[in-house]
Amino acid sequence: MNESVFKEIKWNEDGLIPAIAQEADTGTVLMVAWMNREALQLTIEEGQAVYFSRSRKKIWRKGESSGHRQTVKEIRIDCDSDVVLMQVVQKGGIACHTGRHHCFYKRYESGHWISVEPVLKTPEQIYGQPKK
Amino acid sequence: MNESVFKEIKWNEDGLIPAIAQEADTGTVLMVAWMNREALQLTIEEGQAVYFSRSRKKIWRKGESSGHRQTVKEIRIDCDSDVVLMQVVQKGGIACHTGRHHCFYKRYESGHWISVEPVLKTPEQIYGQPKK
Repeated sequence: MNESVFKEIKWNEDGLIPAIAQEADTGTVLMVAWMNREALQLTIEEGQAVYFSRSRKKIWRKGESSGHRQTVKEIRIDCDSDVVLMQVVQKGGIACHTGRHHCFYKRYESGHWISVEPVLKTPEQIYGQPKK
Repeated sequence: MNESVFKEIKWNEDGLIPAIAQEADTGTVLMVAWMNREALQLTIEEGQAVYFSRSRKKIWRKGESSGHRQTVKEIRIDCDSDVVLMQVVQKGGIACHTGRHHCFYKRYESGHWISVEPVLKTPEQIYGQPKK
């Protein structure tokens, strides 16, 4: 792959860039996660969203546990080359680990954050019991 | 203002949170910038997007130089409370300092980032000459 694709990115001090997944057919902003160079390269090569988990410090193929993969239709970067925006098709219609369609379900209302999106599947339904 | 609004936010080590501005009537992701606590409070109080400029290290009322203010219709946070998503009305139809409608104008195509959005006004037209 052309090295300039990665050189143009303005990685942060941890070698990461925030990546927004936007649902291609509805425009809904589904989630924001982070990519390192490997995650961006895998996303391009595989056509499925691959992030870098900051908590687990490893490559995270979105949907690897839940099945809720994201097929990537388009990848853009912004003027400063420090944010990625992807147009995706969300498998299962659930992007959030809480079982909601998307992660931005807490809305500011009169001094409080209020949950305003339904849980479509519980985490237990999505992730099931730990594998033996 | 209710202190819990700010306590619920998971600020990063610099006391910042990324904030996405999405155009309310089109769904276009216009830009991503950063907010500190003061910027979020001012955004809520003023109903206009206020960010924290990491380069200038100061509060930045979006549009203070360009006139391209963003009227905020809705503010949400995500499941991890570490990203803000706003629905905004973009004054002048230009969010990007390059004079484009939005900042995500570089699209990945066959190993390159290609500019695919027109410049609606040049930066000179937007920012003019330095004031005497």
